[in-house]
Amino acid sequence: MVPDPEIDALCATARWCYARGWVPATSGNFSVRTVEGASDRIFITPSGLDKGIVKPTDLLEIDREGQPVTSNGKPSAETSLHLVLYRARPEARAILHVHTVWNTLLSAHYAPAPHVSITDYEILKGLSGVSTHTHVERIPLLENTQDYLVLGRQMTDALAHYFDAHGVLLSRHGLYTWGQSVAEARRHLEALEFLFEVEGRRLTAGC
Amino acid sequence: MVPDPEIDALCATARWCYARGWVPATSGNFSVRTVEGASDRIFITPSGLDKGIVKPTDLLEIDREGQPVTSNGKPSAETSLHLVLYRARPEARAILHVHTVWNTLLSAHYAPAPHVSITDYEILKGLSGVSTHTHVERIPLLENTQDYLVLGRQMTDALAHYFDAHGVLLSRHGLYTWGQSVAEARRHLEALEFLFEVEGRRLTAGC
Amino acid sequence: MVPDPEIDALCATARWCYARGWVPATSGNFSVRTVEGASDRIFITPSGLDKGIVKPTDLLEIDREGQPVTSNGKPSAETSLHLVLYRARPEARAILHVHTVWNTLLSAHYAPAPHVSITDYEILKGLSGVSTHTHVERIPLLENTQDYLVLGRQMTDALAHYFDAHGVLLSRHGLYTWGQSVAEARRHLEALEFLFEVEGRRLTAGC
Amino acid sequence: MVPDPEIDALCATARWCYARGWVPATSGNFSVRTVEGASDRIFITPSGLDKGIVKPTDLLEIDREGQPVTSNGKPSAETSLHLVLYRARPEARAILHVHTVWNTLLSAHYAPAPHVSITDYEILKGLSGVSTHTHVERIPLLENTQDYLVLGRQMTDALAHYFDAHGVLLSRHGLYTWGQSVAEARRHLEALEFLFEVEGRRLTAGC
Repeated sequence: MVPDPEIDALCATARWCYARGWVPATSGNFSVRTVEGASDRIFITPSGLDKGIVKPTDLLEIDREGQPVTSNGKPSAETSLHLVLYRARPEARAILHVHTVWNTLLSAHYAPAPHVSITDYEILKGLSGVSTHTHVERIPLLENTQDYLVLGRQMTDALAHYFDAHGVLLSRHGLYTWGQSVAEARRHLEALEFLFEVEGRRLTAGC
Repeated sequence: MVPDPEIDALCATARWCYARGWVPATSGNFSVRTVEGASDRIFITPSGLDKGIVKPTDLLEIDREGQPVTSNGKPSAETSLHLVLYRARPEARAILHVHTVWNTLLSAHYAPAPHVSITDYEILKGLSGVSTHTHVERIPLLENTQDYLVLGRQMTDALAHYFDAHGVLLSRHGLYTWGQSVAEARRHLEALEFLFEVEGRRLTAGC
Repeated sequence: MVPDPEIDALCATARWCYARGWVPATSGNFSVRTVEGASDRIFITPSGLDKGIVKPTDLLEIDREGQPVTSNGKPSAETSLHLVLYRARPEARAILHVHTVWNTLLSAHYAPAPHVSITDYEILKGLSGVSTHTHVERIPLLENTQDYLVLGRQMTDALAHYFDAHGVLLSRHGLYTWGQSVAEARRHLEALEFLFEVEGRRLTAGC
Repeated sequence: MVPDPEIDALCATARWCYARGWVPATSGNFSVRTVEGASDRIFITPSGLDKGIVKPTDLLEIDREGQPVTSNGKPSAETSLHLVLYRARPEARAILHVHTVWNTLLSAHYAPAPHVSITDYEILKGLSGVSTHTHVERIPLLENTQDYLVLGRQMTDALAHYFDAHGVLLSRHGLYTWGQSVAEARRHLEALEFLFEVEGRRLTAGC
């Protein structure tokens, strides 16, 4: 494997998420995509790995159809959702998927609404292309299922419909977010999870 | 003591639990079981030890009847519950017992119900053998007592009745969980405690 | 850049704030002011920097009108608020601006009131010049806007009116606090954020 | 200063409390008492020190009347309460005083009751001499005041009346706890703060 600072940054982000309790019980998955000419390569965390100790050589290398380029582990069932996301957001170079207490609670609270709407917080400016707190971020909310073909189609539709969304929520499951680099994807993750916690605590306080 | 990576992993897990506030005030206990031929050995944390600094040489070595093989400390009163668990779950090789704010709150809330039922969360797939969020995990809930003979019998009965449960709750006391390795036991711990926190916060939010 | 222990302390404080989740998604900004004779110099974090990794050479050096003395980055739009603060509080040598879950919640709850009033907590004595828990701290609360000229004028007025305030809240945005040194500014930050959390949890508990 | 493992342990405990947010804004204070023949010496944190960086040479050495033995700092106003406690609990060798969100909330909630009563939690066994969860721990609750003479008298009375209490709460201020060693005092601190958080969250959940 050729050393790649984005792969190092992805692994550091995964370990940081673990330390915060955002990918418990080997949940979550993380990938980066490298593009050279017509060739796409995706490096993704394998199924069942403890994210607290992930390192670059643990990642699986797959092509844009999900076929393994090398074979050193089992791709996670959710790999197909990463492929869907990279197709729907061609500029994306990194995807982060986490299970947090607050995104689980908030997605449970709003389901079966088609999206969660958040506005009027300064931190929204942490999302790429957003320059004012008056921005309305609509995060599509999909019903959870173990049928990844169905989920993939719903995610494709949602990403087309919510063309400027910065994340996708799966109800009582977790968040997908992405960016043009690992740093941007992590910035989106930090902004969205901050907002989920604020909204969750606001609902709890009843204010 | 022969170096054993499972014993190292157990101590690391105990220290990690302490850092998260899950075994305050020298509470909690942790064990691994090694099987060679007809010989069982259990290595378990002694009574009253600060779990933030536990190391392999602190552990007590006992046989499957609880008799000390070496004598370097006082077995905890809860050692008998580890023995009960290893009998009822012969495949178990590690047991983790923690006192957390959320398992204390949730067990207090549901007592005297015979179990706490949790379903429809993706993180349930962190439990061994569970492959869908629609799984219903029923965690037996025992009334706390200082009579460990009574508690042992109730735990034996509960583990027989809830034959596929991944944990046992003692009301206003704590959680027992286990696995075929320290890593699996820790995965179960992370999944269950995540669920207890989500359910506790959901009750608090009234949603 | 001449080594300066206050600049080191500022960067350490910024990284500590990041670790606590108080400046997510590259939010927040931090500055120190050095005064030698008639010459003021302000060292401030640049726009868009991850505060978890800020180091002294990342800081921008500007004069008291906000003009860059050296050019190694883009001043944040909020730099103008630091200038306003240093004018209104000539004794200030450090300013900390953070976005926390509890200051966001509390400012949202009390807006559009002109201030948040907090009294009868011992920790108030952590604020400079306060020697009793009976002190009433009134923290001016400004409506958030992207018009920094307007915000600067409102902040100037608020700092004149609330002449002994130790912080300024921007609704659903964050806190500004300051001190005669980085250590004092950090002490004010710790005291105020502790109080915001206590008040936020008190509101949530309805007690 | 003669090296003393109890002084090292006290400083480590103070830094650990700071890391958990339990002594924000230079609040809190910590002491150990050494007894050799008829001679008592108390080593205590000075006023206004950041507890995140306290080291043995920062401590003040005073006699049992509070007179400085060496002069390297200003004794905190709360030093007199440590002296009161060491008189009322002659077996105590360490005292920890912390300001936490949950002890602040809980003391505010129950004031002006004379004590906070907690029972039926397993973690109560972390308190010295307690062997069952059915123990009723009554923690005296004093009204906060800046008059330390008054507070000292009230604390003396409370410690006589609640002769087996393991801590004293000052309303909207903080907790004092102690032990026959730093380790025991810290065990009491961990047990009591765990209980305050559980009780605080239980009140919030309304269950």
